[in-house]
Amino acid sequence: MRAVALGGGHGLHATLTALRRITEDVTAVVTVADDGGSSGRLRRELGLLPPGDLRQALAALTATEDGGTLWAEVFQHRFGGSGALNGHAVGNLLLAGLFEVLGDPVAALDEAVHLVGASGRVLPMCPEPLEIEAEVTGLENGAVSRIRGQVAVASTPGQVKRITLRNPGRPSEPPAACTEAVDAVLGADAVFLGPGSWFTSVLPHLLVPGLHDALVATKATKVVILNLIPQPGETAGFSPERHLHVLFEHAPQLKVDVVVADRDWVPTPVRLRQAAAELGATAHLVSIADPDVAGRHDPDALAKCVREALGLADRGEQAEQEGQGRWR
Amino acid sequence: MRAVALGGGHGLHATLTALRRITEDVTAVVTVADDGGSSGRLRRELGLLPPGDLRQALAALTATEDGGTLWAEVFQHRFGGSGALNGHAVGNLLLAGLFEVLGDPVAALDEAVHLVGASGRVLPMCPEPLEIEAEVTGLENGAVSRIRGQVAVASTPGQVKRITLRNPGRPSEPPAACTEAVDAVLGADAVFLGPGSWFTSVLPHLLVPGLHDALVATKATKVVILNLIPQPGETAGFSPERHLHVLFEHAPQLKVDVVVADRDWVPTPVRLRQAAAELGATAHLVSIADPDVAGRHDPDALAKCVREALGLADRGEQAEQEGQGRWR
Repeated sequence: MRAVALGGGHGLHATLTALRRITEDVTAVVTVADDGGSSGRLRRELGLLPPGDLRQALAALTATEDGGTLWAEVFQHRFGGSGALNGHAVGNLLLAGLFEVLGDPVAALDEAVHLVGASGRVLPMCPEPLEIEAEVTGLENGAVSRIRGQVAVASTPGQVKRITLRNPGRPSEPPAACTEAVDAVLGADAVFLGPGSWFTSVLPHLLVPGLHDALVATKATKVVILNLIPQPGETAGFSPERHLHVLFEHAPQLKVDVVVADRDWVPTPVRLRQAAAELGATAHLVSIADPDVAGRHDPDALAKCVREALGLADRGEQAEQEGQGRWR
Repeated sequence: MRAVALGGGHGLHATLTALRRITEDVTAVVTVADDGGSSGRLRRELGLLPPGDLRQALAALTATEDGGTLWAEVFQHRFGGSGALNGHAVGNLLLAGLFEVLGDPVAALDEAVHLVGASGRVLPMCPEPLEIEAEVTGLENGAVSRIRGQVAVASTPGQVKRITLRNPGRPSEPPAACTEAVDAVLGADAVFLGPGSWFTSVLPHLLVPGLHDALVATKATKVVILNLIPQPGETAGFSPERHLHVLFEHAPQLKVDVVVADRDWVPTPVRLRQAAAELGATAHLVSIADPDVAGRHDPDALAKCVREALGLADRGEQAEQEGQGRWR
């Protein structure tokens, strides 16, 4: 099965970790609008794609139960100390070096996949860094404020209404999709959107016209995986169905086949089923939360749910372990 | 032939570049007292071995005429910009990450050799960072001043008389030799010292007791390669024979078999032959300067001279090209 997962950050990591239990042919398509932390510093200093979400996707496609390869570990290692390197992940610096030497983020990421021993592919949604702008209410008396940047949007005390995406390097043009990402979506058997920071990691993919059109056109089964809990800041107080409404508002043409949600986080199942149906989708309400970590999906449970939703045979415990073995 | 080259910086790079034309079994033993540039910043920030000279040795054992591998190029790439990463070589950051993850510089360097596709081995002379201290005259009226640190010693306007080496992390103990470096020297067929910054890259090896004793005890042919021109700062105004005298003053027990010098830089050959004889060595006066770059050795000419001095058959132009081919 050719699977494509679109997202960023921890949410994408969860999907990829689950998908690599099902197939080796996983392509991650990653947001490139991050402006915080190590990624933000590298982006501002060197004018490159923010590497952190790309690195996390590489790690998800590499990690094995025994800790993965040495290079995967080096990639994820963060410098300490109290100097200029504090907080930088070695993999971020290495990706930055590869971007500069090769001058092509896709070629650079293919080399990085090879280095860390990942299966599958990691692609940026756009070959150039992008910026998120949000319309937010609740900051000024009744007015709509515009705030800019991933960190600002993700942590606003206001309520995000709508986001737009721009390429600061080419402000007059719409963001260009990564060609390889478009091809991956068009050629996929299944495409996954979410979970993750809804406005800053999930929806941005729908605002890159080339990627949006590919998602509308693809014959792949389209699966939306909802978050387990609303995210303070950008989706505080959002119901599960509100997540789907916001998705529809940002991409009215998009039809979805399956909506996956954790049944313990759906207060009114009938409303979610109705919201899913408006997108053309069936809602799958299952138990996919990690019982030990609040807000985190359990990769095995998510994998099982995806198999059921796609009508794939459950290979059972033994076969699943064999499948994991192939990822080393 | 098992060859070991001891040094640091550009001088060691020249020897390694020549040696890899003769044999694939080259071990570089590298000074770890650098406190300048990218290396110095990393050393101060993270408390690690300064990686720059180690990285240069890796590059010398990798470089091929067509530019070497991608990873060798990424390793040597330096970040620009005007921020905190400016001037850092990607390879320095990667070595720093490997040092931290593996906790063992020798294991880390073995991984780096593998990554960049080098043949041979790169070892630190000591597994912990060291500090050079120098006795210098000419700074105060007739007095002997003590200055500390590689950059300060290499650029002093005074005259360096003698250096000592200390481990700032264990000031009461003599610096410990890297075990693998000691074994390499003891097991070598030929050992090379110099060219390079005499006080800060060449002599420090003689001040690590374990390494000194191995150099005295080894049955390898010992070759000292002199610089082409005196170095402003640490060896300003030094004659070729003065270089040998200083060597003897720092390691009176050391016997040498061959001293290699460029004939155009030896004003009084009889004096150099005499100084060499005092170390037990024969002087080889040859033409080994790169005609296009002042102060740089020509790798082909240096390789030819080393073959002659060691009584190795000159494999000729064709065989030499085949030999180079094996380095890719």
